[in-house]
Amino acid sequence: MERIPARRSVAVRVARGQRVEVVNTHGQQVVDTWAFATGDPAEWMSMEHSRVHMGRLSPRVGDSLVTNRRRAILTLVEDTSGGVHDTLLAACDRYRYQLLGATEPHDNCTDNLHAALAAEGIALAATPSPLNLFEHTALAADGALAIEPPVATPGSHVTLGAEMDALLVFSACPQDLVPTNGAGLTPTDAHYRLVR
Amino acid sequence: MERIPARRSVAVRVARGQRVEVVNTHGQQVVDTWAFATGDPAEWMSMEHSRVHMGRLSPRVGDSLVTNRRRAILTLVEDTSGGVHDTLLAACDRYRYQLLGATEPHDNCTDNLHAALAAEGIALAATPSPLNLFEHTALAADGALAIEPPVATPGSHVTLGAEMDALLVFSACPQDLVPTNGAGLTPTDAHYRLVR
Repeated sequence: MERIPARRSVAVRVARGQRVEVVNTHGQQVVDTWAFATGDPAEWMSMEHSRVHMGRLSPRVGDSLVTNRRRAILTLVEDTSGGVHDTLLAACDRYRYQLLGATEPHDNCTDNLHAALAAEGIALAATPSPLNLFEHTALAADGALAIEPPVATPGSHVTLGAEMDALLVFSACPQDLVPTNGAGLTPTDAHYRLVR
Repeated sequence: MERIPARRSVAVRVARGQRVEVVNTHGQQVVDTWAFATGDPAEWMSMEHSRVHMGRLSPRVGDSLVTNRRRAILTLVEDTSGGVHDTLLAACDRYRYQLLGATEPHDNCTDNLHAALAAEGIALAATPSPLNLFEHTALAADGALAIEPPVATPGSHVTLGAEMDALLVFSACPQDLVPTNGAGLTPTDAHYRLVR
């Protein structure tokens, strides 16, 4: 098992056909997830294109997420976490924490993404909206959204299958001002491993 | 009244405090809408940031949409259309029509956006997810999404207030293969005017 350090990100290269297991080690940690086509990082996994493709808000086992060119890039092949994930909310960023009252610089998933990409020699002019694994966005009948603690249990996981060669970035979300990462407001490590 | 030609786009510059009325002239036409901060087109209206800011899927009268830097850019100040708009679905693009079976090039909102920006001297490396005015995305309790004909009536409108100097792009969606623009599958003109 490889570590996704609390508040930090990792980049993982996968080949088509490989699978990655993402483990919610402590059970309340959201993992912001991005995927980019190898060789052309301007082709990325897109939540707005994936919702059209899936015909639903959020992936279920068997659903594929697609890129901004509508090609399958990842498939959710297994999910022991309760199946609650978010495709609606932007990655946290410096502006989010400023608006929440932070007066000091705060770790954030947007900077984590760009740091992980920079380490791979990639500069990206935009921040794609992430697949927020394990994030529990409660949706009321009138369309109101609320961020709730994850339903995932410790050690539960999702398995993502690569539909093309891709660069993945996982960020263990540093959110500690709202209950994205549980009522305890305490970001923790998560883990991943290449299954095959 | 200025025309937004069927299947085409227009760019409109607005100053902070100005209002733009967007009219669904024939009642079944979706208008994909983008907004960019004047002077820095890398700051754009973002649906994923706006959902966090609004705490809801779609704007109601009084709600502001924010940029990818979480600054208010547009406010929905009036809505006589029935209040049904979409923030979930990507703009249509060449890939969408290919997947729907089109064998010839098809007008699409993504190319319309970039053409309108190019005419303003702006090249953008990404396609922000649009505010799909009048688009009726039905959402089932289990998260399933379906594209339904608009509920807007002929001549109904929304009024958008500019919270900063901005460049707006409106695209009268060319979708004629699924009922985005009504059961008749017939894209039509829409109109807009600067109210003040």
